[in-house]
Amino acid sequence: MGRTSDARERILDSSRRLMRTRGYTALGVAEICADAGVKKGSFYHFFDSKQALTIEAVGEQWAEERGALQAAVTDADGPVDRLRALVARLVGTQRADHGESGAIHGCLYGNLALELSGQEPEVRRRLAEVFDDQVAMIARLIAEAQEAELVGRGTGAQALARSMVAQIEGTVLLARVRNDPALLDEVWPSAERLLGVA
Amino acid sequence: MGRTSDARERILDSSRRLMRTRGYTALGVAEICADAGVKKGSFYHFFDSKQALTIEAVGEQWAEERGALQAAVTDADGPVDRLRALVARLVGTQRADHGESGAIHGCLYGNLALELSGQEPEVRRRLAEVFDDQVAMIARLIAEAQEAELVGRGTGAQALARSMVAQIEGTVLLARVRNDPALLDEVWPSAERLLGVA
Repeated sequence: MGRTSDARERILDSSRRLMRTRGYTALGVAEICADAGVKKGSFYHFFDSKQALTIEAVGEQWAEERGALQAAVTDADGPVDRLRALVARLVGTQRADHGESGAIHGCLYGNLALELSGQEPEVRRRLAEVFDDQVAMIARLIAEAQEAELVGRGTGAQALARSMVAQIEGTVLLARVRNDPALLDEVWPSAERLLGVA
Repeated sequence: MGRTSDARERILDSSRRLMRTRGYTALGVAEICADAGVKKGSFYHFFDSKQALTIEAVGEQWAEERGALQAAVTDADGPVDRLRALVARLVGTQRADHGESGAIHGCLYGNLALELSGQEPEVRRRLAEVFDDQVAMIARLIAEAQEAELVGRGTGAQALARSMVAQIEGTVLLARVRNDPALLDEVWPSAERLLGVA
């Protein structure tokens, strides 16, 4: 397994990093292979196409991020604090980008969602699944907070979770276009208003 | 003026429509020219590059949309209704897309913002100006509503307007990726919660 599985992982790692900063269309297989230090023939041994790679890369990215979000949430105390920790973790990635490279690269799923959609229906479907999973994760925390009467019950947990994900994606978009990480500080206060935090 | 200015307008119209559905990188000058029925030489008579065209196309799109938003707002009664009319107008474009083509194409500025950014700094700057202008327009309506005590005063009008634009862009992103226009119905209820509508 050693070397081959290593090449596969390197291709996935390179594509996750490069696709977030450069987008899907602008990024070619040759560039991914060069970055990963892998021959083109090797690429096609593991993946049928850039589309197939992207679907796997999105899945791997989300599996990793999902774990990190769950860890962040576990450390927090009480349902509202868990929501705050989750937002801090999501937004922290963007802030870290800016600290390292001077640019906000955005969210891989959001970037791909707005660049593609019509062109690559299978990638779009995978992205929709990731967003659904993210919404479900947040909805569970919101339902707990509603149960504890810390968050308003006027709107269902699922709809509130969708509005939180929309708020995060939209704010990252504005922060990216203005290259201004300070905008990211507004996500949690906005989330508190959306949720009607007591 | 007749024919030449006509060719220029046709190039701008084609690029605005095609770029919203296909993105920036995937769209070539040849395709824009074919759609506009204009020769490539003619394109370069009017525009230095695809980048230069995009900056003008974004400006023209916003000038037109700005007028339509202002008209929608003028017809409404009272500051909260003006905000609701503005949201309905912005979201209505996406709903109309879905009705006509079966797909939600998203917002030209949002799509370009997440596809580009690092690659085309001048396009990014133009997009940032459009978003700033959009935020300023909404902030004026919010300030009026705050003045009339119809909207909470706990957060400044500018920050509230940014959170509204983020909510709209984020919801359009989710609606696009799920190709589900029903999500667009959630924008106004979310905006009411963000604003603390009395």
